Amino acid sequence: MAKAAMEAVTPMDEDFARWYTDVILKTELVDYAPVKGCMVIRPYGYALWENIQQIFDKEFKKTGHKNMYFPLLIPESYLNKEKEHVEGFAPEVAWVTQGGDEVLSERLCIRPTSETIICSMYAKWLTSYRDLPFLYNQWCNVLRWEKTTRPFLRTSEFLWQEGHTLHETFEQAEEETLRMINIYKNVCQDYLAMPVVMGQKSEKEKFAGAHATYCIESLMHDGQALQSGTSHNLSDHFAKAFGMRFLGRDNTQQYAYSTSWGVSTRLIGGIIMVHGDDKGLKLPPKIAPVQLVIIPIAAHKPGVTEKALDIKNMLSEDFRVDIDLSEANSPGWKFNQYEMRGVPLRLEIGPKDIQNEQAVLVRRDTGEKICVSQNELKEKVAVLLEEIQENLFNTAMEHRESRTSTAVDMVEFKARLEDNPGFIKAKWCGCRECEDKIKEKTGASLRCIPFEQEDIGTDKCVYCGKKAEKTVYFARAY
Amino acid sequence: MAKAAMEAVTPMDEDFARWYTDVILKTELVDYAPVKGCMVIRPYGYALWENIQQIFDKEFKKTGHKNMYFPLLIPESYLNKEKEHVEGFAPEVAWVTQGGDEVLSERLCIRPTSETIICSMYAKWLTSYRDLPFLYNQWCNVLRWEKTTRPFLRTSEFLWQEGHTLHETFEQAEEETLRMINIYKNVCQDYLAMPVVMGQKSEKEKFAGAHATYCIESLMHDGQALQSGTSHNLSDHFAKAFGMRFLGRDNTQQYAYSTSWGVSTRLIGGIIMVHGDDKGLKLPPKIAPVQLVIIPIAAHKPGVTEKALDIKNMLSEDFRVDIDLSEANSPGWKFNQYEMRGVPLRLEIGPKDIQNEQAVLVRRDTGEKICVSQNELKEKVAVLLEEIQENLFNTAMEHRESRTSTAVDMVEFKARLEDNPGFIKAKWCGCRECEDKIKEKTGASLRCIPFEQEDIGTDKCVYCGKKAEKTVYFARAY
Repeated sequence: MAKAAMEAVTPMDEDFARWYTDVILKTELVDYAPVKGCMVIRPYGYALWENIQQIFDKEFKKTGHKNMYFPLLIPESYLNKEKEHVEGFAPEVAWVTQGGDEVLSERLCIRPTSETIICSMYAKWLTSYRDLPFLYNQWCNVLRWEKTTRPFLRTSEFLWQEGHTLHETFEQAEEETLRMINIYKNVCQDYLAMPVVMGQKSEKEKFAGAHATYCIESLMHDGQALQSGTSHNLSDHFAKAFGMRFLGRDNTQQYAYSTSWGVSTRLIGGIIMVHGDDKGLKLPPKIAPVQLVIIPIAAHKPGVTEKALDIKNMLSEDFRVDIDLSEANSPGWKFNQYEMRGVPLRLEIGPKDIQNEQAVLVRRDTGEKICVSQNELKEKVAVLLEEIQENLFNTAMEHRESRTSTAVDMVEFKARLEDNPGFIKAKWCGCRECEDKIKEKTGASLRCIPFEQEDIGTDKCVYCGKKAEKTVYFARAY
Repeated sequence: MAKAAMEAVTPMDEDFARWYTDVILKTELVDYAPVKGCMVIRPYGYALWENIQQIFDKEFKKTGHKNMYFPLLIPESYLNKEKEHVEGFAPEVAWVTQGGDEVLSERLCIRPTSETIICSMYAKWLTSYRDLPFLYNQWCNVLRWEKTTRPFLRTSEFLWQEGHTLHETFEQAEEETLRMINIYKNVCQDYLAMPVVMGQKSEKEKFAGAHATYCIESLMHDGQALQSGTSHNLSDHFAKAFGMRFLGRDNTQQYAYSTSWGVSTRLIGGIIMVHGDDKGLKLPPKIAPVQLVIIPIAAHKPGVTEKALDIKNMLSEDFRVDIDLSEANSPGWKFNQYEMRGVPLRLEIGPKDIQNEQAVLVRRDTGEKICVSQNELKEKVAVLLEEIQENLFNTAMEHRESRTSTAVDMVEFKARLEDNPGFIKAKWCGCRECEDKIKEKTGASLRCIPFEQEDIGTDKCVYCGKKAEKTVYFARAY
């Protein structure tokens, strides 16, 4: 860590991309792997992922889902069964053509997503409506051969969770699809402190093979959007492609309705770019690997280290606490170090504090210093972590709102995108051509059609001027 | 589940291999995937794996290890850097030769194990002795192109954990290697109720590239051994191949000493074959996905279902409890079903029990029925689960001892292997040729050189008759 910390990170406004790279490398969240577009997730980054995983996993299990594991490799013939799906994914899969010394008769692709292999097994297991619903999920790695990559945001290999469910009716599948996108929204907002817009993807942007794709979109510090989670109603498309049929209540063979939904390590990129500042990371207390770091002042003075350790043991009962006793580095150096790493609270304790039976708490989000008597520490830390969590969310929400503009025509659209990069809220006629043109002319894509729609009245499409159908969000996106 | 349960499993003595296949498929632990040698781990099997994972993960973290994640794909040139290693693994790796439409200039192999890619990153991160030790682990999937496969025991893709550590001295690496094999032993015995022999692998059987491999070996019901976990002292072999050097305390550049250690989903196969019987699975309570299943008798009678649910809620506070309220199946059918699935305890509750304010507990391991007054249920269940855990271990230990023979020459060796298949404890001169010949003539391999050695005195090698060096265990193995 020593080397990394010597120089500070590049200021956001100077070069946001370099700021991001500096932060992820210097805080040792991740490193570049020797394989094109792949990343090594280092302990600090992986601990963050473990915390995020545990929260989602609990929510999935609460709603009746169980975990399974399906194979990494998918025969080419399976990928080819659902037409739209293969067209969407074939260009970005990695192919295994040789096993040991044997050249394979059929190529195997490394899963870019697992609908095809999972549906083939579901077809085998499903017999009667009594078997339904199938409510399963898997935590795994997937691989998509990406041209341009960035750690967490877009990597060839990434870690994710993919839920795959089967239902008796379209309505039940729709209900599940919405249930899961709402879970994604709630976890992102309540734990990751990341405000999201929730809505539907356009036909152009929806998942390859889906009837409808719902998504949550968040806004990064530089005004670019990040797709943070998607939930797909696959209707009976995959059921027909893979023969997922069952004997219905009416004794006839029927096709099942399926859904799939996923979030990935990409969320870590979101957390970095939503909350971070020029000092580095700001981690929401609920998912921070370390919620509070203790830094003794004048540790060589009698009793200081002992006291610091006492406090660590006491606070470790309720919080994720770290202590830095290294003698190689000064307290000031350590302050910067743990601010860069986004630890929500710092506790300083020195001879004077010990005399006054107090300690100093410093908030990462506001920099505020608070003197606390040692016997009130636990209560105070709990309160402050709550406040920091809330403050991070509110700050991110204010940022998003200040970066959300409206445009009634393309002149306004382009102007807003330049003078206040972020979400452009606009009316849209619903046709693909307008969507394509806007992307082509501005680089902004249609991020989502929010569930909460305003009354359109006689409003016109921001591009073609014909009658508008929907209010939608556009943005340049990662 | 219905179909699977209609027919019972093949008796062990009739055909052990078929018994195994029947059990894993009928209890829905696993299913065959459409990819050669790959398996689908179904919810019941995955829940078992999650429980095993959590126990190991806690032990790893207690001993200072942190989790990370390294890429799935390894460039061929990396695999080639350690000579013995590549010779050992190259024949069984799957090769990625194409990404999207682009044919790769260098082949990438899907990790059969991750020493090479991890060491290349460690070399980059390591600078000073102050950085050491590196104590990291990853939970992931690996792939080895196996000719003959069997779910859990030997599959092309499997799930595992691989720990990779770096140390300043050989002694520290040796200490770590032994620490981890002891953790494996303790978890297997204390949680999986699986007795193991702990010792060292012969030069022939050690890990490709290792200085020394330590292992735990368990004995299956059919008398075949299963290698259940290994821990490797890699000395400075990988450090030299990958340039893992650091500035030592004496200000000179030195090579680090590394270790690696792993356990896999193979352990599930061990649990099945160590504890199972002709009725199916017997799961140790500490890892059983369901520790107790409640089956109401005459559930249509007033109050029965309500009472059963009350009990479920009460017991769920302390135990993993399931209840079967399905009307399609009779209690008797359910009894068989959950016995096959190895649920340690069954609770029956019917009108008469309700009258007498009692319930009937039935042990999976002994079949014993115990009437318990409802207000003592919690205490009794806790005690019984403890007893079952202990009994499974003791039974397995007795079986292993009854299946461990000694042989002073090859006549005895072959005789024992036929009349009492299991471990053959024999004296060995230590030379590779004798080991090879024994394998060739009997199919039994040298499983391990136990840490606990008896006094050899003037004893002779079981094969060549020359002076013996060690007492070792031979067995036919999975």
